[in-house]
Amino acid sequence: MIKVGIVGGTGYTGVELLRLLAQHPHVSVEAITSRSEDGVRVCDMYPNLRGHYDDLTFTVPDAKRLGAMDAVFFATPHGVAHALAGELLEQGTRVIDLSADFRLRDATEWAEWYGQSHGAPTLLEGAVYGLPEMQRERIRTARLVAVPGCYPTAVQLGYLPLLEAGLIDSSSLIADCKSGVTGAGRGAKVPSLLAEASESMKAYGAFGHRHLPEIRQGLRDIAASDIGLTFVPHLTPMIRGIHATLYGRLNSGQLNGDPDALQALFEQRYANEPFVDVMPAGSHPETRSVKGINTCRLAVHRPGNGDVVVVLSVIDNLVKGASGQAIQNLNLMFGLEENAGLTAPALMP
Amino acid sequence: MIKVGIVGGTGYTGVELLRLLAQHPHVSVEAITSRSEDGVRVCDMYPNLRGHYDDLTFTVPDAKRLGAMDAVFFATPHGVAHALAGELLEQGTRVIDLSADFRLRDATEWAEWYGQSHGAPTLLEGAVYGLPEMQRERIRTARLVAVPGCYPTAVQLGYLPLLEAGLIDSSSLIADCKSGVTGAGRGAKVPSLLAEASESMKAYGAFGHRHLPEIRQGLRDIAASDIGLTFVPHLTPMIRGIHATLYGRLNSGQLNGDPDALQALFEQRYANEPFVDVMPAGSHPETRSVKGINTCRLAVHRPGNGDVVVVLSVIDNLVKGASGQAIQNLNLMFGLEENAGLTAPALMP
Amino acid sequence: MIKVGIVGGTGYTGVELLRLLAQHPHVSVEAITSRSEDGVRVCDMYPNLRGHYDDLTFTVPDAKRLGAMDAVFFATPHGVAHALAGELLEQGTRVIDLSADFRLRDATEWAEWYGQSHGAPTLLEGAVYGLPEMQRERIRTARLVAVPGCYPTAVQLGYLPLLEAGLIDSSSLIADCKSGVTGAGRGAKVPSLLAEASESMKAYGAFGHRHLPEIRQGLRDIAASDIGLTFVPHLTPMIRGIHATLYGRLNSGQLNGDPDALQALFEQRYANEPFVDVMPAGSHPETRSVKGINTCRLAVHRPGNGDVVVVLSVIDNLVKGASGQAIQNLNLMFGLEENAGLTAPALMP
Amino acid sequence: MIKVGIVGGTGYTGVELLRLLAQHPHVSVEAITSRSEDGVRVCDMYPNLRGHYDDLTFTVPDAKRLGAMDAVFFATPHGVAHALAGELLEQGTRVIDLSADFRLRDATEWAEWYGQSHGAPTLLEGAVYGLPEMQRERIRTARLVAVPGCYPTAVQLGYLPLLEAGLIDSSSLIADCKSGVTGAGRGAKVPSLLAEASESMKAYGAFGHRHLPEIRQGLRDIAASDIGLTFVPHLTPMIRGIHATLYGRLNSGQLNGDPDALQALFEQRYANEPFVDVMPAGSHPETRSVKGINTCRLAVHRPGNGDVVVVLSVIDNLVKGASGQAIQNLNLMFGLEENAGLTAPALMP
Repeated sequence: MIKVGIVGGTGYTGVELLRLLAQHPHVSVEAITSRSEDGVRVCDMYPNLRGHYDDLTFTVPDAKRLGAMDAVFFATPHGVAHALAGELLEQGTRVIDLSADFRLRDATEWAEWYGQSHGAPTLLEGAVYGLPEMQRERIRTARLVAVPGCYPTAVQLGYLPLLEAGLIDSSSLIADCKSGVTGAGRGAKVPSLLAEASESMKAYGAFGHRHLPEIRQGLRDIAASDIGLTFVPHLTPMIRGIHATLYGRLNSGQLNGDPDALQALFEQRYANEPFVDVMPAGSHPETRSVKGINTCRLAVHRPGNGDVVVVLSVIDNLVKGASGQAIQNLNLMFGLEENAGLTAPALMP
Repeated sequence: MIKVGIVGGTGYTGVELLRLLAQHPHVSVEAITSRSEDGVRVCDMYPNLRGHYDDLTFTVPDAKRLGAMDAVFFATPHGVAHALAGELLEQGTRVIDLSADFRLRDATEWAEWYGQSHGAPTLLEGAVYGLPEMQRERIRTARLVAVPGCYPTAVQLGYLPLLEAGLIDSSSLIADCKSGVTGAGRGAKVPSLLAEASESMKAYGAFGHRHLPEIRQGLRDIAASDIGLTFVPHLTPMIRGIHATLYGRLNSGQLNGDPDALQALFEQRYANEPFVDVMPAGSHPETRSVKGINTCRLAVHRPGNGDVVVVLSVIDNLVKGASGQAIQNLNLMFGLEENAGLTAPALMP
Repeated sequence: MIKVGIVGGTGYTGVELLRLLAQHPHVSVEAITSRSEDGVRVCDMYPNLRGHYDDLTFTVPDAKRLGAMDAVFFATPHGVAHALAGELLEQGTRVIDLSADFRLRDATEWAEWYGQSHGAPTLLEGAVYGLPEMQRERIRTARLVAVPGCYPTAVQLGYLPLLEAGLIDSSSLIADCKSGVTGAGRGAKVPSLLAEASESMKAYGAFGHRHLPEIRQGLRDIAASDIGLTFVPHLTPMIRGIHATLYGRLNSGQLNGDPDALQALFEQRYANEPFVDVMPAGSHPETRSVKGINTCRLAVHRPGNGDVVVVLSVIDNLVKGASGQAIQNLNLMFGLEENAGLTAPALMP
Repeated sequence: MIKVGIVGGTGYTGVELLRLLAQHPHVSVEAITSRSEDGVRVCDMYPNLRGHYDDLTFTVPDAKRLGAMDAVFFATPHGVAHALAGELLEQGTRVIDLSADFRLRDATEWAEWYGQSHGAPTLLEGAVYGLPEMQRERIRTARLVAVPGCYPTAVQLGYLPLLEAGLIDSSSLIADCKSGVTGAGRGAKVPSLLAEASESMKAYGAFGHRHLPEIRQGLRDIAASDIGLTFVPHLTPMIRGIHATLYGRLNSGQLNGDPDALQALFEQRYANEPFVDVMPAGSHPETRSVKGINTCRLAVHRPGNGDVVVVLSVIDNLVKGASGQAIQNLNLMFGLEENAGLTAPALMP
């Protein structure tokens, strides 16, 4: 069994790791940390875990104890992994960071968006961006993986085939994204109350959101050109799920003769991807079709056969957008079946 | 009192007319029709109306009885007003049609999108498109008003200042719209069940939706130029509300020097509009802030000070997107205060 | 115009008072207090009020300024009205307290349930319990009204006809109550997050809830006998609404001969009540049928014609359960029409 | 592998069987029937199953083909299993019926509640009521199992320890039950629309519900005495979950000396039950804590140390209340681990 620890286990990505790892055949959770819940059993905080982790108790983070693990997940606010990852890597422990700490390659850009200096810039060179559909081979040998953000996962997987093929203008992309409320975390904030967030919808961060530079960096790698991207996230009254609606303008001369080329492009690009599902032509994927699972479902449209391509991309923000993708990375890093522990169907209805 | 009738009163726009008209100081509902519910009291079907319309009963439509009204609302599926409107107009009754029957000026285009020939093309010339913010003076003297669709209302009010001012490229507009489920009507369909539509989100009609030609026609009038518009509607798990997120590309040379010009443009354009509320700069309007009321709230953004303008436009699809706007039209047609019966604040939380 | 102030205006009952009073023909809100939001415009905090109270700003409570009002509403946590009510009453201002401070006549019992000594026991004798269906005449002349709690309103109105008539055993009552989440207030607590409270249901306070002694006191007055009551509240994933399901055992010999007697009893008891609606026999009232309004809808059943009576009682917890009932009390205290400002139908769907 | 078929696979219990069986190590779904969807792939109807049952297609029911299975589940409306079960049993196929067809032992009582004569009364003697916590040994050797209804499961498991121990008066039981909307099935009915059922709560069937005789029969077996039960079900705005709040009156002289006796009684009774979780004293179980899993979580209270016992019992109506319990029965019938295929934790949040 692979021994793993979880730093910052009280948030939604922490409990989701526990839920998924309870079904993993080759992983054992040996430690979970929380400063605020030190001494509390995880199943007392999360009754869905009763019967699964009855002996697992939150402890304060301890670098030595965590360094005895084969791998450690960080399910923490930004800045925490900066402080602790180096020490763990030195002890030979692999680090899978679900926070934003190692997603941007440029420490200066990170500092601009996060309002503090980067705490571990020397680790950046060795960090691998954990989007397996783009970086699978590098992930296999990585010691430090930065798990992509939820919006960046949905957006990059949707644009990937189009940008790789040079089909659309990379300077005028528009990503209109809708997220369930767990994307805002488990913090007790008035706008996240059921009485405030239910029966309503709103945009947020329209001027600029921290996931924007991460998405731009990824798309730039794919397109090998500058990216012009407008990204507007929205809060939607549901617990889980991201729906990214992605717009791109066809470069001139593309697709003129072949009505099926777009669909074929997506199907071919993702033919061997275990966690990307290209839906039949004409589909409109629902977020609930991926509730609780690590799959991204995609559909591609060309409204009115015009010059705009629309990609619909849905994920569960807590799974493919966080904890599930983290486990997918772990599976790759340890030479396991890529889908180990990630085989259950979505909960529907 | 102005005597009104409602044709097709069992759907959501019908009951919403009744709810709003119960507070109207100058209107009396004298007739309401339904073939399927003939003889049923409206308050037995809609218990929220108990105590308000205790003697009002659905009857089968009767042109003579309806022709005795000062005005008749059609809250019907498309095609019904075609058959009956002419007969009422001949009797001197004014017609306010909430359906799509008279929204498109071109009967041929109507036939293409609705899959049947137009049933009253001779009435088209006299029909006025009932968006008061564009057509107020024509509405005052209209005999036949076509109340705009829900999406078209939210989209046109959002783009109006930008297109009037020639600020954005009218050939590359993108309207990403999200609607609550009452937009799909009261029909008993599996996808509209709580167990199917709750905790999920999806796009629909991505290839082409019937509101597209209506929006294009309106924007073309405003811009006095051809419109290139991509319109993708989405179903959102809430009862009421539309959130339109509107993207436009600034024409070159616009706004370069003045960070406040966009906000000022919107505030000036709508300074005297009783039902358009331009929110403070930086706002993200919530759909719940207009729950039950006839207001459209707008915010305008320029992400990263780049060349894309984003307008956030929210309405209640059943009020400003249907029944409330119908009453606003009636108020104009009969020389009443424009906000008569439409003065209550939104229900929040 | 009657000049009123609101102490503690930032919570849900405060904003609901503002929403309802915006439609009141004879009341003007002249002051609203909040220590935390001093200087903030109410419409900046509550965008649904934009256009209605554009000049109203939160201020810190000031006894002199409040004492210049005709009436002051307390929409505060318990304990606040204790401290301030006396001072206002001395200045001739009438006090309508939505908190629990003056609901229990026995200061000792109050201290037991609220964990602190009663702050104004000398005012208790003059306080009137503001359930108009029981205390209308006393309310008309009251200087200090204690507005009933939300559960107590729904429960007392449901049991009232049965206990007055001596029909059921008052020693074995069971009130199983379900509330929307606004009942828990606007505090930022994890269990009230949409991500926690949505798609779930639970009981709370099963051992004992602060509304229990209030209900018992009221039912004891009605029955003129001791009350044995089991009261279990539940949290339900909706914003507003209380559904009380009330069980009582028929005293022997009651109702044996007359199947319609129960229904007739309820209809007669409430025939002249403007805010109690006895639904037709066999009905199951929905909470949404009272969304936003001051009505309590009731249905009475006798399952299988056995010896148990079941009353279904629904209210909007923020209206008849709080702010609407407070206004109903004000109307009585100032000799206005009892339904002034409270005439709009419920929002449905 | 055990070969199974599913009759009536298009409803919620059908798709839930597929979801759960996708994780079962010893079962292979070889056939699924639907008259209306003949020829449709299950994953085209239920996209959550894409990647799991890509070759499984609905076919019309065929007794011979189904008779080749080791076991057949009926996920059908009542009456269907009557017609087909006998033929399958004759071919040696075991039958697990999720419908109500074989739950009541008395064919006459069945006919009264279901409004048609019983279609297979000769099979009743051999039918075993599939509540493993009561009938485990009989289930092991059963050929025909009637899976309990959703409400009956939650109610019986809650009352079981109390009635077995003779602690409460069996003549005055009150079961106030709340269910998510999947309990009403996948039929397209207006009251089940999100726009109608969301943001609201109501009771239904207060006069009498078909689950009442099933619950009474089960409780009578436990108590070995007549049962007086009032059962009121409620519709709650959530997809899944049942919350049963169960009231019983302590027989005189019971529990007087021991505050922990109630808790101990429940813990002992269910100590070895894999799918019943007695929560710590003072708990209020949430329905979401069993979302998607086969567990019933229970808490027992004695409000104010009085003579009323309250049991809070939560299940997922589609799992322990239907498809999960069906699989638990299959596991017992085929000598497998009782929890085979049923080991995943609940989805939370």
